[in-house]
Amino acid sequence: MCNPVVIGAEERIDDLLIGQLKVIQHEKEFCFSLDAILLSHFATVRPGAKAVDLGTGTGVIALLLTARGAAHVTGLELSQAMADMAERSVLLNQLDEKVKIIQGDLCKIKDILPSEGYDLVVSNPPYRPVGGGYMSPNDNVARAKHEVTAALKDVVGAARYLLKYRRGRFAMVHLPERMAEILTAMSQAGIEPKLLQLVYSSIDKKPTMLLVEGVKGASPGLTILPPLVVYKPDGTYSDEIAKYYKEYR
Amino acid sequence: MCNPVVIGAEERIDDLLIGQLKVIQHEKEFCFSLDAILLSHFATVRPGAKAVDLGTGTGVIALLLTARGAAHVTGLELSQAMADMAERSVLLNQLDEKVKIIQGDLCKIKDILPSEGYDLVVSNPPYRPVGGGYMSPNDNVARAKHEVTAALKDVVGAARYLLKYRRGRFAMVHLPERMAEILTAMSQAGIEPKLLQLVYSSIDKKPTMLLVEGVKGASPGLTILPPLVVYKPDGTYSDEIAKYYKEYR
Repeated sequence: MCNPVVIGAEERIDDLLIGQLKVIQHEKEFCFSLDAILLSHFATVRPGAKAVDLGTGTGVIALLLTARGAAHVTGLELSQAMADMAERSVLLNQLDEKVKIIQGDLCKIKDILPSEGYDLVVSNPPYRPVGGGYMSPNDNVARAKHEVTAALKDVVGAARYLLKYRRGRFAMVHLPERMAEILTAMSQAGIEPKLLQLVYSSIDKKPTMLLVEGVKGASPGLTILPPLVVYKPDGTYSDEIAKYYKEYR
Repeated sequence: MCNPVVIGAEERIDDLLIGQLKVIQHEKEFCFSLDAILLSHFATVRPGAKAVDLGTGTGVIALLLTARGAAHVTGLELSQAMADMAERSVLLNQLDEKVKIIQGDLCKIKDILPSEGYDLVVSNPPYRPVGGGYMSPNDNVARAKHEVTAALKDVVGAARYLLKYRRGRFAMVHLPERMAEILTAMSQAGIEPKLLQLVYSSIDKKPTMLLVEGVKGASPGLTILPPLVVYKPDGTYSDEIAKYYKEYR
């Protein structure tokens, strides 16, 4: 690499186990989790797609979308510290021609990115309304997990603005308990839910995550995929999840 | 029985295998299926509940709700022939003090039943929009399967009208592919989806049915139950389904 990327104190480089991708994370900030891997795999990425990741955090989803065939991904992140770290991960992977990290507020998307210019918008947004569950005293972690800065309708509204009118897709990972709100918000924004999958730690338990993709301007009709089970009874990843890692190698 | 119930030509008496319940069905008309059994079990029936079954058909759900503890069930049915048959099933089971069958159109619910008077409304409505899939040349069968006479929003609107404001529940069985429309329609009608279960013939396939229950005036937050698998690999009913039958004996 021509310009060695600076890694700060308390930061570490994690191997994404996918292609040769690596990501810088900070031990006291929000770190990416399986949710990001699942969303990156679930989203329909047409070859050459132009994509936006709303609330990109460490940038892991933006990096993974390039491995899935996206021609260009813009990662939008509110926190300047997180955006800086994501930008260094982009450089570390020599993906600066394909991934652009922008510091900015998705609630002001109209001042930041052009309308109807993207094939795909993805988001792993804050899951919980403010007031729901334990909130981290670390502001960046709280913003990543709670709707401090952007509520569900803001995320869906930004996606609506960014997506090409016909066949633009919006994919999101979220909590199953918010499924009714999510499907209603997408429908009302004209992003018709077309594909949905529930993720289970174990098939005899309630689902732990929801993956959903909508298409702007599509007619109603939802395909619900078979359950996605993450773990085998012995605690290792299921064949389905293990496959995600192998596919990008 | 004091007054033997008349069974017409081409009609038959089917044993519901639940309690001692029996139902009259006509070979050329719409016959109840597993959907009705699943809905009757899924719905939250508080002891002493007053319930309405919208589009009761053969009356099978109305009969089953009494076995689950409902104090009184009104079955509304558009077809006079089906309503007559359901009424004879009520008499056959000597449930005429608990189940009342009314011939009428749920689109005119305000002329038929009082508002906000019921704890529970259930419906196994026509699943497909007009124009979607094969339509039976038998008018009654077509009306039972396609939204010829009542669309999703009419069913949800009738439920909204009938339910008590606080804690009145609406439970429905429907197609998974219409889940987004259903959750949106319920939310918009102020019947917040609170409980949902997907039904699978086999766990590695897409779900075949959707069970959903909403509560009028509730705040958002949906519980998605573990998948309900109908069949064992050998083709017999799973333990879960077999249990439904045993519970009422």
